[in-house]
Amino acid sequence: MSVQEYVKELAASAKRASAQVASSPVSVRDSALDAVAEQIQLQRGCLLEANQLDLANASTTGLDSALVDRLELNEGRIDAMLESLAVVRALPDPIGGIEDLRFMTSGIQVGKMRVPLGLIGIIYESRPNVTVDAASLCLKSGNAVLLRGGSEAIESNRVLATCIRAGLTRAGLPPEAVQVLDTTDRDAVSAMVTLNGVIDMVVPRGGKGLIERVARDATVPVLKHLDGVCHLYIHADADVKMAIDLAINAKTHRYGTCNTMESLLIDQDVATLIPDLAASLLERGVELRGCPRVQRILGDACIAASDADWGTEYLAPILSLKLVENFQEAVDHIAKYGSGHTDGIVTNCHATAMRFLRVVDSSSVMVNTSTRFADGFEYGLGAEIGISTDKIHARGPVGLAGLTSQKYVVLGNGHIRR
Amino acid sequence: MSVQEYVKELAASAKRASAQVASSPVSVRDSALDAVAEQIQLQRGCLLEANQLDLANASTTGLDSALVDRLELNEGRIDAMLESLAVVRALPDPIGGIEDLRFMTSGIQVGKMRVPLGLIGIIYESRPNVTVDAASLCLKSGNAVLLRGGSEAIESNRVLATCIRAGLTRAGLPPEAVQVLDTTDRDAVSAMVTLNGVIDMVVPRGGKGLIERVARDATVPVLKHLDGVCHLYIHADADVKMAIDLAINAKTHRYGTCNTMESLLIDQDVATLIPDLAASLLERGVELRGCPRVQRILGDACIAASDADWGTEYLAPILSLKLVENFQEAVDHIAKYGSGHTDGIVTNCHATAMRFLRVVDSSSVMVNTSTRFADGFEYGLGAEIGISTDKIHARGPVGLAGLTSQKYVVLGNGHIRR
Repeated sequence: MSVQEYVKELAASAKRASAQVASSPVSVRDSALDAVAEQIQLQRGCLLEANQLDLANASTTGLDSALVDRLELNEGRIDAMLESLAVVRALPDPIGGIEDLRFMTSGIQVGKMRVPLGLIGIIYESRPNVTVDAASLCLKSGNAVLLRGGSEAIESNRVLATCIRAGLTRAGLPPEAVQVLDTTDRDAVSAMVTLNGVIDMVVPRGGKGLIERVARDATVPVLKHLDGVCHLYIHADADVKMAIDLAINAKTHRYGTCNTMESLLIDQDVATLIPDLAASLLERGVELRGCPRVQRILGDACIAASDADWGTEYLAPILSLKLVENFQEAVDHIAKYGSGHTDGIVTNCHATAMRFLRVVDSSSVMVNTSTRFADGFEYGLGAEIGISTDKIHARGPVGLAGLTSQKYVVLGNGHIRR
Repeated sequence: MSVQEYVKELAASAKRASAQVASSPVSVRDSALDAVAEQIQLQRGCLLEANQLDLANASTTGLDSALVDRLELNEGRIDAMLESLAVVRALPDPIGGIEDLRFMTSGIQVGKMRVPLGLIGIIYESRPNVTVDAASLCLKSGNAVLLRGGSEAIESNRVLATCIRAGLTRAGLPPEAVQVLDTTDRDAVSAMVTLNGVIDMVVPRGGKGLIERVARDATVPVLKHLDGVCHLYIHADADVKMAIDLAINAKTHRYGTCNTMESLLIDQDVATLIPDLAASLLERGVELRGCPRVQRILGDACIAASDADWGTEYLAPILSLKLVENFQEAVDHIAKYGSGHTDGIVTNCHATAMRFLRVVDSSSVMVNTSTRFADGFEYGLGAEIGISTDKIHARGPVGLAGLTSQKYVVLGNGHIRR
């Protein structure tokens, strides 16, 4: 059997199982999550052994040390995995509820019921915890799921797959509802992302290379964000102390996250705050790359930003800084160089704040807040399947609702159309 | 300039204009719609002359008479066009409002603002009124639009394009926000539907051939439905008179619409209603195609349904009928042969009705109602851009909200992440 046939067959079996998951009561889906947790608890030893095999293979193949770190499981990480499962289990049922049921003038009642999408495909890299995390989010939202983990984690993922399928069976759900692709063939990904009519949505979770490849090859809908080139704009009417605190938090709270500020725009009217801000950032080891005017203020403390700097997601202790003449230059800069992820303004002027919210076309727009808040948990979604910088279907941090759709429900009492 | 370059250039100019439409107050967008109506009123004579040219060309090329009918404009149809414009103008502003603004435990406020998608592409056939209808829906929702009408309507559409652009200019909006492709080259469609990053969504409005072609070639998101193979299932606990009335209305109210019933499933426990129902349908000239058991009841009045009949959208006075053993056989049949458009049940059993709503995976699911109600106006959407049988982004009848997205709005007072 070719890898294409294998992927197709597994996906088809998951799709067939999806109807049963979709119409199951939440108590059954929750007890499946409980049973999966129990199985993982029982198989701790087995899971750690399998993970040791993956780690041994990784050292043979000379895997990058950052990836090895993500691949590694230990008791603490297994505990964290079980904790995430419990968090998802505790969320309210995202499907089946009927909203906005209203009478129309014809006498019919029309509302919307939230329903699962069907079959979700998840494509991810070395972290084995994504196997459990993604499976739990899909099951909770009534979806079946086809998982394609990194080849470097295949031994760990095999054990987790067994736990998940055993859990499903114990809860009376079809084990085929969660399929873990057991192949290291890279063609499996291209096969997955072109299964229109079988896979309803694909979510790539991983580095930019993976996401770009999936987005390029996919013909099924993809939930993704490519870049987080986030801006903070310090407006002329900003509270200077607040602006400095927000800029430092947005840049230095964590460097490797997509909602970290990469570019700071400073209104020329508050240019006097630059030396203090720069001193704080330099003290924290942040490299500064400025426009000519910022460079003139900072001298040797700041190197020249090239045009490429403005559109770069550093994911590192580097910040580009630009002095702008006014609001319009700031929002034009964001429109030109931003990635539509998260952009914020610091201002005490209400009209300016409202204007910024309206005209900046990003998945999160913020006033007087650190960009680091752009996150499913911070937004109260309970869990996060990913962040979308696209506008179709879901945008910004995506919780369980992003794995669902709505259908119209129409109730009558023999109503005919006249 | 090649047709690809021409399409790309026109789309790029519309996209550039889209930001100004997106951030314009609703009063400006409404006055643009008023000004477009005024221009059409002024150009009535010119429009009718241009339409005469299209009709003359159509008779030379031997255009199908149904298409000629759709192509033709007269005073009444121009009045109807102006009336639709007024209806769209009267709708509340679908963008800019902030929903669900709530405080999080961190102290930040998080809500969602409804925003336009950006640039919508509309691909349609002979009816020139779609030019005005689609342009008004896109403008009202803050979008720019690229229109590709049928080549047979090009003279009429040229005049309408002039009216729309003049209206935009008078209202102070960029005329580039509505672009009408002035070419009969069929490659323009393929060029449009692959403009990722420029066109945010494409809506094909027309026959199945057009929609299939767009769906096959498109790499940008498409809002579409292909088939309306709608079912009504008469359950064992149905009120017999209600069931007959609903079946007759769902089949015979109009034959050519996508929400017309094409297949009737009858529970064997209420098979006795078949002769009366059949008599009413035959009286109205409906051809009946039945399963063997239905045929045994009706004899010569009913021909045999082939397997192909079950998945066919007749769009004609033809109905397929099947006797089913129970609820499960009915919903399995709908899952196998339906198109996910609209399916209904007739029953007085509450539990069965609720079960039907939950398990049938169609964009509209109905209880004791004619399928003919699946319609944007009947659902109170105010206007309808199309019906979607896909699950991503929009599903079922789609109003102005289907041309919008949401972005997160985050308000703080110097909140940093800890």
